[in-house]
Amino acid sequence: MNRKMTVMKGHGTENDFVVLPDLDAVISMSPSMVRALCDRRAGIGADGVLRVTRTELATEPDVRAQAGVAEYFMDYHNADGTIAEMCGNGLRVFGRYLQRFGLVDSADGANLTVATRGGPKALSFDGEHFTAELGPATIRSERPRVSAAGLLGEYESVALDLPNPHVVVQLPSAQDLEALRLTEPPRVLPGLPEGQNVEFVVRLGPDRLRMRVYERGSGETRSCGTGICAAVVVAAGEQAGQGEWTVEVPGGECRVWWNAAGNLMLAGPAVLVASLELSPEWLAAHR
Amino acid sequence: MNRKMTVMKGHGTENDFVVLPDLDAVISMSPSMVRALCDRRAGIGADGVLRVTRTELATEPDVRAQAGVAEYFMDYHNADGTIAEMCGNGLRVFGRYLQRFGLVDSADGANLTVATRGGPKALSFDGEHFTAELGPATIRSERPRVSAAGLLGEYESVALDLPNPHVVVQLPSAQDLEALRLTEPPRVLPGLPEGQNVEFVVRLGPDRLRMRVYERGSGETRSCGTGICAAVVVAAGEQAGQGEWTVEVPGGECRVWWNAAGNLMLAGPAVLVASLELSPEWLAAHR
Repeated sequence: MNRKMTVMKGHGTENDFVVLPDLDAVISMSPSMVRALCDRRAGIGADGVLRVTRTELATEPDVRAQAGVAEYFMDYHNADGTIAEMCGNGLRVFGRYLQRFGLVDSADGANLTVATRGGPKALSFDGEHFTAELGPATIRSERPRVSAAGLLGEYESVALDLPNPHVVVQLPSAQDLEALRLTEPPRVLPGLPEGQNVEFVVRLGPDRLRMRVYERGSGETRSCGTGICAAVVVAAGEQAGQGEWTVEVPGGECRVWWNAAGNLMLAGPAVLVASLELSPEWLAAHR
Repeated sequence: MNRKMTVMKGHGTENDFVVLPDLDAVISMSPSMVRALCDRRAGIGADGVLRVTRTELATEPDVRAQAGVAEYFMDYHNADGTIAEMCGNGLRVFGRYLQRFGLVDSADGANLTVATRGGPKALSFDGEHFTAELGPATIRSERPRVSAAGLLGEYESVALDLPNPHVVVQLPSAQDLEALRLTEPPRVLPGLPEGQNVEFVVRLGPDRLRMRVYERGSGETRSCGTGICAAVVVAAGEQAGQGEWTVEVPGGECRVWWNAAGNLMLAGPAVLVASLELSPEWLAAHR
């Protein structure tokens, strides 16, 4: 770790990240450093760390193989220090960072490809919002029953992979969604073997949803990119693949549609909040 | 608000603050700006804002009157945008900031006085820790009954003012303290008219306590300076005024004793984590 370390904090629909530039790939992100940076009281505070580095310098062969199509690699780490394949909201913040610091050619700035552990991801910019191309959703055969504090009775859900595992519960009214208490995890019976994010969704109109989400390992968050897409796939049902949806989450709103290849497209805001320089005393304590 | 705004984030036993220098008193802290800065996902994130300004430039006459004894005024704002008189953990972080940026004469650096809405507060520095002189505690006649999730039955408490209102509950074992669930507020019957911070305390030894705290308006926090002093006063009982105590809180530990004037002395760490420069887009959105 360098003695001087300048990072940024940013968020996409209030899913927040520490963006850590490391173009020459000299920083080794230990799980304890990730946890210290993401600590909301003793560190900077975030849901995860996005390390920005050159794809050709990645140590993982599957990532380095993307160097021909994606100049930069989004090395994503969850707040608990684990590594994740991808993060839909993080991808937009990563794009905003590349744009702000002139790391994308302005001629190509409207369309770029970012390397991730989940493969190269296309990202485009329309002036205000970034749009990320996520993969297709795969609906599973399981129909777990879900209950939660503040919710009367049990609901049947739909389980799907994006490719991370989701369980979507459709609720009858916005009042039900508001009454939900997600300070403790919802009960999912039977739970998916690898765990799941649970989305509670209310339909507000023909192409508008409101959603709250409980993420495995994080608890209730203010937004979840793949969860937003999962909610749309379930609400669309037979109409999946057509139209454009708007999803309200506690941290803002996103739009979702499908491209010609059948991949889910997620559009939303990306805000850089501040640049930060960590103090020498903090760095010394977390070395 | 200036177009460019450089602030710091710091914490004292993980009670965290945005320190905002405004020596020429040109910034007017609106409640909405305080809430935006303290927002843990869309802003920097903190329990409160400490504005650093010259006492002689304060608009409040009671503060300006302290200019003869205290060069700097700690203008403290809670995360919800309200103004508070004082903050024990914040005072240490404020002292660390003055020291780091050379705002105290190095000859006087070990002893300084800070102006607050609760009157001038003496602060001293012993190499690693800062010690703040808080006022005396006043025990009230009320003995509210307290219950909380995870705790069997009701406990009698001691109510006291420091001068903010506290209710201290002594628990029999560290296991009881650990089993406590403070995601929802404890029930206090009858509650104090102005509300209260509730401290749950276990005695670990003749002069050592472990404590958790539920702060009015904030929920469970990782430390509360006046709450730590309140816990010691209740545990000391007839011996109050003598000896030195150590109190473990989730965010670290502090020491407490009484000075010759009978005032409570609170010693603990103060860490500056990072300096931050807010982005123009964030400032424009929160103007």
